[in-house]
Amino acid sequence: MDQALPENIAVIGPGLIGGSLLLALRKRLPKTNLRTWVRRSEAVNELQKIDPAIVASTNLKTVASGAGLIVLCTPVATMPLIAKQLAMLPLEPGCIITDAGSVKSPVVTALESIFSKTGTSFIGSHPMAGSERSGISAARADLFEGSSCILTPTLFTSDKALETARKFWSLLGCRLLEMQPEEHDRKIARISHLPHLAATVVALTALRGDKSAAECAGNGFRDVTRIASGDPELWTGIISQNRAEIISALQEAHEINGNLLAIISSGDDSALLRLLQEAQSLRDGTHAA
Amino acid sequence: MDQALPENIAVIGPGLIGGSLLLALRKRLPKTNLRTWVRRSEAVNELQKIDPAIVASTNLKTVASGAGLIVLCTPVATMPLIAKQLAMLPLEPGCIITDAGSVKSPVVTALESIFSKTGTSFIGSHPMAGSERSGISAARADLFEGSSCILTPTLFTSDKALETARKFWSLLGCRLLEMQPEEHDRKIARISHLPHLAATVVALTALRGDKSAAECAGNGFRDVTRIASGDPELWTGIISQNRAEIISALQEAHEINGNLLAIISSGDDSALLRLLQEAQSLRDGTHAA
Repeated sequence: MDQALPENIAVIGPGLIGGSLLLALRKRLPKTNLRTWVRRSEAVNELQKIDPAIVASTNLKTVASGAGLIVLCTPVATMPLIAKQLAMLPLEPGCIITDAGSVKSPVVTALESIFSKTGTSFIGSHPMAGSERSGISAARADLFEGSSCILTPTLFTSDKALETARKFWSLLGCRLLEMQPEEHDRKIARISHLPHLAATVVALTALRGDKSAAECAGNGFRDVTRIASGDPELWTGIISQNRAEIISALQEAHEINGNLLAIISSGDDSALLRLLQEAQSLRDGTHAA
Repeated sequence: MDQALPENIAVIGPGLIGGSLLLALRKRLPKTNLRTWVRRSEAVNELQKIDPAIVASTNLKTVASGAGLIVLCTPVATMPLIAKQLAMLPLEPGCIITDAGSVKSPVVTALESIFSKTGTSFIGSHPMAGSERSGISAARADLFEGSSCILTPTLFTSDKALETARKFWSLLGCRLLEMQPEEHDRKIARISHLPHLAATVVALTALRGDKSAAECAGNGFRDVTRIASGDPELWTGIISQNRAEIISALQEAHEINGNLLAIISSGDDSALLRLLQEAQSLRDGTHAA
């Protein structure tokens, strides 16, 4: 499997995801040349300390040149900008480009168009791995192990791009799923973006009026609100890129919440029990249980 | 500290909480006589396998007789019933009775009255420890270590009861908080009961319409919805006992959710960013972070 992946792999943006990719690749493909583009020059030194064999640079050309696989790990909102800069460089012929963004439809549409005449091939990826922490300091070599990774091939995706993406994410320990970008965005709005907003609402409701309630918090509060500690700028970008599906999911949650409020207010405990049972059964049916 | 606690301690209802208490007490107070009342006779054998030195019985009199400390670990809704049965028995003079329930005001009011003429003294306790799992099979000796435990003394609480409860929960590794039962119920509605309902709403919204979204679930969904896997009957009981405060918290969450929906629908990303920042800051300020 090692030989099937390119000898030179570039990671654009070594934050939590990109940094974890570099650590995981170093461990699993010790002979592969790893390069990474960083926005800030100070990050070059940080990367050198982590692994001096990784070529870290603020120069996109240095990093992308000769790479057979480029993985974009910047925030979704900035991906088209980075992609345009990449598309102007002399990229390796047949280079496969993928990403790790949390929204697929607008990213895939934009990047397929941007890379269409560069002799490269793009495929969207979304590893369902993360943390409320961000940046290279939170990176872990095992971040992707056991996670789902969703690939979103379209009519324009080359067989080679799909095959390379499958090998790449499998190597990192991901379970693969494949679906259209629109299906991805609809499901992820409900299974990832909505939970983030729910965590936000719980943190606000629990603590806005009386911060001292925090000292009573147990594991339930800790886990439900964990992702509300995630980077607000990153999440504003994600939400703005998947706005329509998130509105739909949030409206549905708002209705169910209203329904729950009506049931609890009316004292109909058997209806409450049925709702809690339904949620328990749905939740226990997920592999996440 | 060992000598200050009674030589005979009775745990009523060895489920997740009661079972964990027994395991923790056995470890920390190896010389103390432990007894436990179980509802089902089959549970006597289960307990014997876990620790033959624990006296397990379906006979409340056998268990309570001679106990200097009795800890009620049954569901909150059934506590007054058990308390009435206990109050009819010849209890040890000066016996301290406490509980581990998630709602305090109605429990404390009922149990103070029930035990008022028995020569015993009641104090409400709520260790903020738990799990989405239930029953003795989920019990762990370290469940309480590092958790908050809220004591709710009132004007009727004896000094000895308060002192015993402090020693008991401290011994188990809890950080102690003390507040009035009403304050407890207001805070816990927001910091514990609301998160449970939010987890329920997220599980329902994410999976009701399309169960296949579950295969995309990552850690965020897993953690936000974990407590939705909790026992529905237990939670229906908790919610019904703290109805007014939960309605108030849920209404507040409903308003914030509506506000969030309006902000996202309007495309006001700077307002969205501010809301996410506020939630992050509130959440990061808790010891749970």
